[in-house]
Amino acid sequence: MPKPKTTKKLTSNVMEKGRRPTSYDVARIAGVSQSAVSRCFAANASIAPAKRELILKVAAEIGYKPNALAQALISKRTNIVALIISAQTNLYYPEVLAELSTRLNERDIRVLLFALSAESDVDDVLDQIWRHSVDGVISAARLSAAQVALFAEHRVPLVLYNRVATAAPSVRCDSISGERDLVEQLLAAGHRRFGLIAGPRDNYVGEERRMAALSTLSQSGIDDVAEIKGDFSYRSGHAAMHELMQQSGKLDAVIAVNDLMAIGAMDAARLDLRLDIPKDISIVGFDGAGPAQWGSYDLTSVRQPVRRMTDAAVSMLIERIEDGSAPPEQRLFAGELLRGSSARLGVEIV
Amino acid sequence: MPKPKTTKKLTSNVMEKGRRPTSYDVARIAGVSQSAVSRCFAANASIAPAKRELILKVAAEIGYKPNALAQALISKRTNIVALIISAQTNLYYPEVLAELSTRLNERDIRVLLFALSAESDVDDVLDQIWRHSVDGVISAARLSAAQVALFAEHRVPLVLYNRVATAAPSVRCDSISGERDLVEQLLAAGHRRFGLIAGPRDNYVGEERRMAALSTLSQSGIDDVAEIKGDFSYRSGHAAMHELMQQSGKLDAVIAVNDLMAIGAMDAARLDLRLDIPKDISIVGFDGAGPAQWGSYDLTSVRQPVRRMTDAAVSMLIERIEDGSAPPEQRLFAGELLRGSSARLGVEIV
Repeated sequence: MPKPKTTKKLTSNVMEKGRRPTSYDVARIAGVSQSAVSRCFAANASIAPAKRELILKVAAEIGYKPNALAQALISKRTNIVALIISAQTNLYYPEVLAELSTRLNERDIRVLLFALSAESDVDDVLDQIWRHSVDGVISAARLSAAQVALFAEHRVPLVLYNRVATAAPSVRCDSISGERDLVEQLLAAGHRRFGLIAGPRDNYVGEERRMAALSTLSQSGIDDVAEIKGDFSYRSGHAAMHELMQQSGKLDAVIAVNDLMAIGAMDAARLDLRLDIPKDISIVGFDGAGPAQWGSYDLTSVRQPVRRMTDAAVSMLIERIEDGSAPPEQRLFAGELLRGSSARLGVEIV
Repeated sequence: MPKPKTTKKLTSNVMEKGRRPTSYDVARIAGVSQSAVSRCFAANASIAPAKRELILKVAAEIGYKPNALAQALISKRTNIVALIISAQTNLYYPEVLAELSTRLNERDIRVLLFALSAESDVDDVLDQIWRHSVDGVISAARLSAAQVALFAEHRVPLVLYNRVATAAPSVRCDSISGERDLVEQLLAAGHRRFGLIAGPRDNYVGEERRMAALSTLSQSGIDDVAEIKGDFSYRSGHAAMHELMQQSGKLDAVIAVNDLMAIGAMDAARLDLRLDIPKDISIVGFDGAGPAQWGSYDLTSVRQPVRRMTDAAVSMLIERIEDGSAPPEQRLFAGELLRGSSARLGVEIV
C-alpha cells in the first residue's frame, strides 16, 4: 500500500472546484480503491483494520462525510419515513404531526412530510413516495383499497393512523365507543332535542362519529336530529350553530364531531344567540385538543390518547420495516371522556 | 444488440427474491450496460433513441422505477429541503409549518422535517442534515454564527425564517415596528401602568418584541414595568397574569409577546380575576394566530403576513440552490395591526 501523499494540495484542489469531497477523492489520496472506502463506511462490511484507519484519517483530513444517500443505496434503508397528513382545518392535526415526528426522531428516523390540502389528493403523493425510497409510510389520510394494494406491490410498509383498510395495519381511537358514551351521557341528563354538526362526507373519522351519534340517539327513539355539515373549522361550526337554531328553534344539545367546530358553535351560541352554556344548551366535541380545554371553553369532549397512539403507530411501522411478513393488525384505543362545563351529563358512576 | 428475451421468467425471479427490480435487472434483460440504463433515466444524458426505447420497454415490463436516491447522486439535486422548526408551544408554529410545506410542495420539493423541542437542540440536527444531502434548509430556529458558517462550509443554502444572522439571508416580520406601533396606540389611549409577559430568553423573536415594548414605554417616561417570563404557552400566560396582578395590584394594560400567552392572560383576567376586558384592563398579543381571532378573545394583536413571508423564504432558497453565489439578503415584512376588542387603542387615523 503506498504511503499517503501530503493531502494539503489535493484537499485545496477539491475545495477550489467548489464541490464536496467524494469517496473517490478519499480513495485517490489514500491510494486505495473506491470500493474499500465504501466498505469502510458501510455497516457489517469487512475491511483490514490498517486500511480502515488510513481511510478514516484521509476522510477526516479532507472533510469527507459518507453520503446518506449513497449509504442508503448500500444498506437499502434510508431511515426516512413518509408522513401523509391531511391539513383539513382540524385543530388536532398539528398535535398529531408534532407527536409523530417526535416519536420518529427519537428513533433516529427523519420525517418526509406530505401535507395534503384534501384527503382526495393522495394519488398525487404516492408516486413521489415510491420514488423517494422511504423505509415506510404512516398515513393519517384515507387510502382506497387500490392505493393500499400499491404499497404491497412496491413493498413499502404502511401503517394507517385513525384510518382503516382491511389489508393494512392501523392505529385508531375508538370513535364509535367514545361518541356512544358521550351521547348516552347526554341522554341520561335528559336532553331530547339534538343538533349535529358533521364533518366532510369524505372524512372517515368524522363519518364514524356521526354514525355512532345518530345510531345511539335512534336506539333511544330519537330519529329527528337536525344536522348541518361543516368542514371541521371554527368558522363552519360557528355558522352551523346559527343554521341549526334557525332550523329547529330550540335544541337541548349540539353534538359536533370535532372540537374546533364545537368551539365555533359555543361562541355563536354564547356571543350571538345569548344562550347560557350549559343551562340553555349543552355543546360537546371530540378530540380533546388543547384550545378546547382553555378556560373560555372547557369543552366536554372525548380525548384521543395521542401519545399512546403515535407511539403504537411508530412501533408497528418499525416492526414491519424489519419484518416485511408481519400480518396486518388493527389497534383500537379507547378515548377518555372529558367532563367539561360545556354540557350537562349524567351522574358519574365511580 | 441482442433481441430482448421473454421477460416473464426473469420478472418472476425478481419478484420471488422479494426485492424491487434494479437498473441491473433492466440492463441484464435488455442486454445493455447498467450505465446505459442510468443514462436513459438521467436528465441531459445522451443515449441512442432505439436503445432508449428498449430500456423503457423492459423497465415498464418488470416494474422498474428509477430510484430517486440514485438519480439524486447523478443530478446532485435531491428536491428535498430540510425545515428546522422549534416546537416551543407557540400557536403560530403549525401555521408556519403548513404554509412552508405547502409552498415547497407546490414547487415539487419535499420537506424533511426537523422539529426541535428547544431552540438549543440545533446542533443535534445539523449532522443529520449534512448526511441527508438536502438541496437547502429553511430554519425557523436560531442558529449561531458558527452554525451558519457550517452551512457555507458544507455548501448547503440556508434561509432563516424570523431569525437573523449577518452571514445568512433571512425573512422576518418587523417585530420591532409592529410592537412599537401597538404600544404607542396603548399609550395614546391613556394606559400608564403596564405589565409585560415575555418569552424564553433564548428566543430571538420574543426578545425583540420585549425590547421594542420596553424601549417604547421608556421613551414615554415609563420605566416601571412589571414583567413575568413565560414560555409562549397558554398556561404560562394564564399564570403570568395572576403573578402580575399580585405584584402590581392594578394594571392598565398587559402586553404579551405572543398571542397564546395573551389568550391565557385574558382567561385568567376575565374568569378568575373578574376583570372586564377592555374596560378594566387592555390585553394585547402578537402573531395574529387563528384562535386569537375567535369570538371569545377577539385579541388586539399584530398579524404576521405568513403567506407572503413563507413565499419569500421559499423563493430566496430556490434562488440560492440554483445560484450558490447569491449574496445574503434580509427581507423584512411589516405586520398588520389587528384592532380587536381586547384593548382600548388610540383613535385610528384613516
